[in-house]
Amino acid sequence: MSEDGDARPWERIQELTELGDREALEAAVEELPPGEAARVVSRLESEIQSRLLAILDPEIAAELVELIPEAQAASLIEQLSPEDAAPIVAEMSSDEQADLIGALEESDAEALLAAMDPEAASDARLLASYPSDVAGGLMVTEYLAYPISACVADVLADMREHAERYAGYEVQYAYVLDEGSPRGVLRLRDLLLAPGSRRVEELMVRDPLTVPDDMSVDGLADFFDAHDFFGVPVVDEASALVGIVRRHDVEEALAERHGADYLKSQGIVGGEELRTMSMLTRSRRRLSWLSINVVLNVIAAGVIAVYQDTLSSVIALAVFLPIISDMSGCSGNQAVAVSMRELALGLVKPVDAMRVWGKELGVGLLNGLVLGGLIAAAALAWQGNPYLGLVAGGALAVNTVVAVSIGGTVPLLLKRLGVDPALASGPILTTVTDMCGFFLLLSFATLMLPRLASA
Amino acid sequence: MSEDGDARPWERIQELTELGDREALEAAVEELPPGEAARVVSRLESEIQSRLLAILDPEIAAELVELIPEAQAASLIEQLSPEDAAPIVAEMSSDEQADLIGALEESDAEALLAAMDPEAASDARLLASYPSDVAGGLMVTEYLAYPISACVADVLADMREHAERYAGYEVQYAYVLDEGSPRGVLRLRDLLLAPGSRRVEELMVRDPLTVPDDMSVDGLADFFDAHDFFGVPVVDEASALVGIVRRHDVEEALAERHGADYLKSQGIVGGEELRTMSMLTRSRRRLSWLSINVVLNVIAAGVIAVYQDTLSSVIALAVFLPIISDMSGCSGNQAVAVSMRELALGLVKPVDAMRVWGKELGVGLLNGLVLGGLIAAAALAWQGNPYLGLVAGGALAVNTVVAVSIGGTVPLLLKRLGVDPALASGPILTTVTDMCGFFLLLSFATLMLPRLASA
Repeated sequence: MSEDGDARPWERIQELTELGDREALEAAVEELPPGEAARVVSRLESEIQSRLLAILDPEIAAELVELIPEAQAASLIEQLSPEDAAPIVAEMSSDEQADLIGALEESDAEALLAAMDPEAASDARLLASYPSDVAGGLMVTEYLAYPISACVADVLADMREHAERYAGYEVQYAYVLDEGSPRGVLRLRDLLLAPGSRRVEELMVRDPLTVPDDMSVDGLADFFDAHDFFGVPVVDEASALVGIVRRHDVEEALAERHGADYLKSQGIVGGEELRTMSMLTRSRRRLSWLSINVVLNVIAAGVIAVYQDTLSSVIALAVFLPIISDMSGCSGNQAVAVSMRELALGLVKPVDAMRVWGKELGVGLLNGLVLGGLIAAAALAWQGNPYLGLVAGGALAVNTVVAVSIGGTVPLLLKRLGVDPALASGPILTTVTDMCGFFLLLSFATLMLPRLASA
Repeated sequence: MSEDGDARPWERIQELTELGDREALEAAVEELPPGEAARVVSRLESEIQSRLLAILDPEIAAELVELIPEAQAASLIEQLSPEDAAPIVAEMSSDEQADLIGALEESDAEALLAAMDPEAASDARLLASYPSDVAGGLMVTEYLAYPISACVADVLADMREHAERYAGYEVQYAYVLDEGSPRGVLRLRDLLLAPGSRRVEELMVRDPLTVPDDMSVDGLADFFDAHDFFGVPVVDEASALVGIVRRHDVEEALAERHGADYLKSQGIVGGEELRTMSMLTRSRRRLSWLSINVVLNVIAAGVIAVYQDTLSSVIALAVFLPIISDMSGCSGNQAVAVSMRELALGLVKPVDAMRVWGKELGVGLLNGLVLGGLIAAAALAWQGNPYLGLVAGGALAVNTVVAVSIGGTVPLLLKRLGVDPALASGPILTTVTDMCGFFLLLSFATLMLPRLASA
């Protein structure tokens, strides 16, 4: 576990920050391997982090802020004075800016916007006003647009004049507007081949597809699946162009949601947890989930308490309680995972629950027989009583069918009810399968009691 | 659960396929909402799926194949004769083509390549020869490249001549080659502003960044984090340009890996499971994971068997066995999820295991005290014996610390050992925490036996 063999690049950054040597610091930051920046920044003490950002040129500081996870970037910016933070945030691209501002505490966001250039602040305010998972929240406002009356020479003159500003844009198309609404798209390569006097109206591809600013990530993903575009113009209620959503913005948002769903399914709720956050925040968030599960566990275990007499007659049954609970959880979670995946891929909808159940039943019966057989064999080998094997194996077999039935269908039903399936499927599954599994094992055992107790 | 209220677009597609009405079928397919195509195709019987693809124009069939998940697309293409499949696959973009061919059975892939145009087949063979998670496997071979001796007019003439072919390219840059190696990049907008006699060598941005064809997805993600590029040229060992990796290809690959990691962490191993696959395949894959877990569960439960005497003296302990197993699993899985997330974000490396352990210890102690307190209170309320509360609560408190310690560090240690942490973290965690939890509960109880049994 020794780290002696590894470079500790944060030590050099820390040293240079303490010295306040701007030039050497900028060089050191630029030299960090790209995958290392987040790790290095998270290793610095928070006071050093603030001083580092204040020393760096705002453009370099902005690059660094864009490299680290949003939650960490937000707490870093909150540590700075609005005057130090504003020039850094101003250097970020419009979509990253909006995400960051959305992640700040409201009062910090207001102070930051007040310290920014008023025009930039109003743009940022507009973007930050959208939820982060709709077109308006994913779009960038860096795009080229020209009035429908322009000619090719006008476009070229504008591009020449603003070459420096446009250099940071990812330009593939230019949009042709009529009273703010997109009426056509110009491909740069078509401009290449046209005489300067040609009007853009004759050159453009007419009636471009647009998406509304409230279109969801899923809708956008479907859109880019169906259309081989690099980006799509976003329009507001009045059909005015407000920004561009690029294909990779949508891919990024989907990857983020996958990450968030994974965290939620494992019981990390209330947003991302990074180990740079305070222990109390991390503990509180994890407990909010764990304490619900304690209650559900106690309720499920209540079934065991009802059968204490059976248990005290055949104490060997206690060994099988956690096995049935764990194994049913495993089988059920597999079915949950396949349903979550099929929902994400658009292969099933809530209305398909019955069909999914049918598909799970077959697998559940087969796997239940195999798993039940394995447990029965283990029970027989251990206690030499075939009836104990029958009880434990039978309970696991039946409960496997129950577990895959619940696991396969609950995500769809939760989705229909508007409850987040990543969050709620797990606890519902384990509580029901635990109760059912304990009941099956102990009621089978009660029925078979004479043959079990005589072993 | 009735589906009567919902449209069943697959019924119409099925009807038209049976009629063999190509025009109506193409119209119906084009009219499918983009998010629906995968669901509709998966609802058709496999014989109808084959006939559908054979009837459609290859270009439309290719669009349909690109919309459905890779595993499903591969089995669809395998159902077709190589002669029917080849023109469809030829219409797909080079990266989708390579992914599909890589997902086919080897003999099917060979038959398909033999039926394709030799030049296209050799391109596809090259791309399919790369693993799907390195630059060579993610790149597209559709790009513009010109010799270093060309002038602007040459470039424009070529673009005019091949306008139709290039129309399907996502062109942002053109590459300038010297003996096959990239020497510069031309931005289309710079071409716009240059006179035709200008040599591209004077116009190009020199010494463009390139990535080797074996660069991993992680390396590419770091590259695109650090550079605001839309795409990057990929070079082989001889520094020759072999393709372009675009930012969204990398985002897509990361999203796919997230999906695969989620499935693996929930026990779906051996590749994606879709409910359109055969029941036996699905059952076999799930069992391969479940049967390992049965064995681990039986081993862990062996600890309980050792303490049968204690259990039969204090039968109430049996209620707490599954609670301690479940709750420790929950706490441990939270720590696993945070470590997996921090690994994915590049915030930690295997070498940080000790630091991660330190960060988990605090949270584990705090959460252990709270959860142990809750269970102690429940035990006291149920049995009125404070010693039972002390035993159960104490065991859960200590085991929570054990669980988060293992959960936080095991993914890092597995990563260092080259074992997939998404796959192995869960079973290792639950087995060790179960054994430890059962031991703690039952050994504490054995020590306290006089005070427990007298209750």
